Amino acid sequence: MLMNDVITGVDLLATAVFAISGALAAAQGRHDVLGFILFGTITGIGGGTLRDLLLGVDSIFWFTRTEYLWICMGASVATWFLAPLFDSISKVLLWADAVGLALFSVLGAVKAVQFGAPPIVAVGMGVMTATFGSMIRDTLLNKEPVLLGPEIYVTAAVLGAAAYTLLHSYTDWALPIAIALAFTLRACAIVFDLRLPKYGKPADE
Amino acid sequence: MLMNDVITGVDLLATAVFAISGALAAAQGRHDVLGFILFGTITGIGGGTLRDLLLGVDSIFWFTRTEYLWICMGASVATWFLAPLFDSISKVLLWADAVGLALFSVLGAVKAVQFGAPPIVAVGMGVMTATFGSMIRDTLLNKEPVLLGPEIYVTAAVLGAAAYTLLHSYTDWALPIAIALAFTLRACAIVFDLRLPKYGKPADE
Amino acid sequence: MLMNDVITGVDLLATAVFAISGALAAAQGRHDVLGFILFGTITGIGGGTLRDLLLGVDSIFWFTRTEYLWICMGASVATWFLAPLFDSISKVLLWADAVGLALFSVLGAVKAVQFGAPPIVAVGMGVMTATFGSMIRDTLLNKEPVLLGPEIYVTAAVLGAAAYTLLHSYTDWALPIAIALAFTLRACAIVFDLRLPKYGKPADE
Repeated sequence: MLMNDVITGVDLLATAVFAISGALAAAQGRHDVLGFILFGTITGIGGGTLRDLLLGVDSIFWFTRTEYLWICMGASVATWFLAPLFDSISKVLLWADAVGLALFSVLGAVKAVQFGAPPIVAVGMGVMTATFGSMIRDTLLNKEPVLLGPEIYVTAAVLGAAAYTLLHSYTDWALPIAIALAFTLRACAIVFDLRLPKYGKPADE
Repeated sequence: MLMNDVITGVDLLATAVFAISGALAAAQGRHDVLGFILFGTITGIGGGTLRDLLLGVDSIFWFTRTEYLWICMGASVATWFLAPLFDSISKVLLWADAVGLALFSVLGAVKAVQFGAPPIVAVGMGVMTATFGSMIRDTLLNKEPVLLGPEIYVTAAVLGAAAYTLLHSYTDWALPIAIALAFTLRACAIVFDLRLPKYGKPADE
Repeated sequence: MLMNDVITGVDLLATAVFAISGALAAAQGRHDVLGFILFGTITGIGGGTLRDLLLGVDSIFWFTRTEYLWICMGASVATWFLAPLFDSISKVLLWADAVGLALFSVLGAVKAVQFGAPPIVAVGMGVMTATFGSMIRDTLLNKEPVLLGPEIYVTAAVLGAAAYTLLHSYTDWALPIAIALAFTLRACAIVFDLRLPKYGKPADE
């Protein structure tokens, strides 16, 4: 019970963070306040919606728990007023996205595990929950998807989801450990510009 | 019963209108007749399909009622032959899209309300039904999504869906009133070039 | 029983072929090994996943049968190592895509027919199964979707799906005949550059 409360709290937090990242992307595109709400909401609930569709749950999470929708709308409208206070929107967007990535990759795996998914499916669901919202956001805004950027992004989501999937039957601390691992890897990737090797020899370029 | 017949009739009309708008977009891209059918069908049933998936209905509407598919195909093929008669395809496309937007935003809310969705979800479903088909159409054709254009577009869908959701328990005229409101707002936006204020001060630009 | 084994075998083969085509597209974009896996998996299971969602099956096919996911990952990683051996990646990609197109268009119709879908829906499901994976692949990579290319592509998928849907109650050979028809048409389109007539008179251009 307590554990579920913690999970719900983290889930709402991650939703707000991703909604902010969606609204900030709308700010970069100079959209109107409805565009902020639209992108905030799509980014905030897009990943979890796809996860629920693919898991085949009886009812998508925001159908009964409308607080997820209100949080997306509230965070988006708040961003409309607060975004001008930030000097560098793209930097805030980058870090908001990193926090959301860590939280959602693990929570997606949590929900899939609760639903009885095999480990490989749980990892896939975690990665999808964490990346699908940003993917739609970037596709609609015609931006290079952060998903395909050179830095380690999907890798961090894989790490978070896999860590939870592997550890959850051994320790009660699987949730915070997995989130910390995913965030640390993504943060290092941003700060130290870590990359996986690209396909093709340098000589080819 | 009668009400349901009216709703079905309006729904088929909106499907045909959106299919035409999809086929006209294919005409702008100079695609072949199969491209017309493809874009006509995606635009015509895309929004309702996503709505049904998210509502978790037992069976997507066009699975049993294949007349929706035939109407999309028929309207697309008809557009192939008739489009050359129009001087300005983009103008016809704009207005076909406006009619479809008004009809579908309200009908999406109608179906969600019938399904027992909370008001905020019903409004969201209306907006989604009205915009998702065009969104795929524009993304696939690499056009600037009309959804993100400067004029009031999503706002009109929100107005139509919200008006029906609020009024349907008070009056039998909720359906035509909501459609008229959504269409009037969208029409004014097109004619008078109405916009919501954009993010960012003019001085920034 | 035997028939189902054949279908499963062909399905796994088509999945591997499409996963390779996805990984080759990642190679053209010079992505890292995780990008290969991501695009390989999306392309390999994307079409079947949409088909299952729209059919409303109880459980998406790869939820219980995780071998589909492993095959996508294996084929993608293998492509990472083997792609440098090919002189012309784009040519291999083109033909891998043609094989996958023929197999999936027919198999999508097979599954829909087994599920009791009306003929027009079965054809639509076949086309979707065959094209949706490549469509996401190309959209994400910002490539002109092969789907919208001038050559006959969707037409081949329609032919394969329609042939199976029409023939399956008359002959046990519907599966291989339909696959052969779809592949032959697509192969002819590639070799002889077959096209459907485009919209608009030449004089317009």
